[in-house]
Amino acid sequence: MQTGFHIVLVEPRYDGNIGSVARVMKNFGFKNLVLINPPEIGAEGRRNAMHARDVLDDARLFANFEDMLPHYDFLVGSTAKIGRDGNTRRTPVFVDDLGGSIETDGDIALLFGREDYGLLNEEIEACDMLVTIPSHHEYPTLNLAQSVGIMLYELTRQQGKKRFTDKKFKMLSKIEKDVLLRFYDGLVDNVMDHEFENNIAKKTFRQLLGRAFVSGREARTLTGIIRKAMERTSN
Amino acid sequence: MQTGFHIVLVEPRYDGNIGSVARVMKNFGFKNLVLINPPEIGAEGRRNAMHARDVLDDARLFANFEDMLPHYDFLVGSTAKIGRDGNTRRTPVFVDDLGGSIETDGDIALLFGREDYGLLNEEIEACDMLVTIPSHHEYPTLNLAQSVGIMLYELTRQQGKKRFTDKKFKMLSKIEKDVLLRFYDGLVDNVMDHEFENNIAKKTFRQLLGRAFVSGREARTLTGIIRKAMERTSN
Repeated sequence: MQTGFHIVLVEPRYDGNIGSVARVMKNFGFKNLVLINPPEIGAEGRRNAMHARDVLDDARLFANFEDMLPHYDFLVGSTAKIGRDGNTRRTPVFVDDLGGSIETDGDIALLFGREDYGLLNEEIEACDMLVTIPSHHEYPTLNLAQSVGIMLYELTRQQGKKRFTDKKFKMLSKIEKDVLLRFYDGLVDNVMDHEFENNIAKKTFRQLLGRAFVSGREARTLTGIIRKAMERTSN
Repeated sequence: MQTGFHIVLVEPRYDGNIGSVARVMKNFGFKNLVLINPPEIGAEGRRNAMHARDVLDDARLFANFEDMLPHYDFLVGSTAKIGRDGNTRRTPVFVDDLGGSIETDGDIALLFGREDYGLLNEEIEACDMLVTIPSHHEYPTLNLAQSVGIMLYELTRQQGKKRFTDKKFKMLSKIEKDVLLRFYDGLVDNVMDHEFENNIAKKTFRQLLGRAFVSGREARTLTGIIRKAMERTSN
C-alpha cells in the first residue's frame, strides 16, 4: 500500500529537482519525502513544488545514509545501470515487475541517487532489491524527478493488479530476515572453503530474497531448513 | 512503432519544460518534437534538455493548431480532466490502455496542452482519442514534462521491454533449475523429519525461484552451496 513507501533522495544536488519530486509525489498521493544531506531549498525548489509545498515542508532529513538505514524494513534502490550476469553488479528488476500491492507492516524506502552519479556501490549493496526503468541505450539517464514520477506511476498502476490475491501477503520483517540470513551465513561458512565463493554465496542469496518478495511464512520455512542444515554441518 | 509517434506541445509557455520534454523523449528513444507557437528556447530550455539538444534543434514549428492538423493521421490528446457525463466532455482512456487502442499505420500526434490550461475544447474535439494519466484527486495536475515522460514510458513498456534488455541477463535454464532443485530436495530430505514440513519446504523454494528471476550464474552459485550442504548431511 502506498503509505508504506517513502521516497528517499540520496544527496540530491539541485533544489529544483527536489521541488519537482515533491510535486509528482503529491500527484500520485505519496506524502513521505526523505532527504539525505540535501542542499538548501530555495526559490526554484519551492516554485517547482507548486501545490506540494507541504510535502517539502514535511520532509524528513538525515545527515547521511547510515543514519537513515535503521528506519526502514526494506530498501529498494533505483538504478539506470543494468547489471551484467556475472560480475559484482547487481541485477535489477524492471519497474513494472516491482509488485505494487504488497501489504507489509513495515516501511519501504525507495532510494534515488545523486543526479550525476546515482547510488554509490556501498549504498547499492545495502539495498534489498534494485529496480530500473527501461530506457534507450543512447541516453538512458532520466532526470531525477522523472525517475520518481515513473516509479510512482507504476506503483499506482499496479495497485489494481494485486500480485498476491488469494491470501493476504505479509512480507518478512526485518527480524525474520536477519534470523534467516544469520543461519544461512552460518551454513555457508560451514560448507564453503574459499572466502571468495563464500562472499558470492552470501550476496547471491540476499539479492534473491530482495527480488522475490518473500513472505514472513516463507522466510520461517526456509529458516527451518537452513537452520537444520547449518547445525548438521557444524562439526 | 515509436517512429510513428510525434510529441506535439500546444502553446507551451516555459522553455524549461520544453527542454525537459526533449530530454525525456530521447531517454525513451523518441525523436520527433513538434512545437505550436512556443516561446523562444533560452538558457533554461537548453540546460534542461541536457544531451537531447538535437531533439530541440530538430523540432518542427507551427504557428497555430490548424496548421499542424493536416500533417497527422491520428491525434491523441492528453488531459487531466476526466469526463463526467454525457455532455460535450469526452471520456479519455487510461494511458496503460493506450497501446491497443490506436489503429493506424500513419503518423500519430500525441498532443500535450498548455501548462496552465491544457488543451482547449476545440482542440480536444479535433482529437481521435483522449488519454489520461490516473493521478490523485487532491492534486491531479502533473508537470508537462512528467506527463510526456509517463506517456512515453507507457508506450515503451507496452511495446515490450525486451528490446531494451539485450542479452546481458541470462535466466537460468531448465537444466540449471532441475539440478538446483534436485540438490535442494536432497538437502530437505536429509534435514527435515516430517513429511508435511518437507513438502512445504520444497514448495516454498520453488515459489521463490519462480518469482525471483534467478540468473544462470546465481543458480549455479546456490547449487554449489546446497550441493555441499546436501552431501554433508547425507549420513
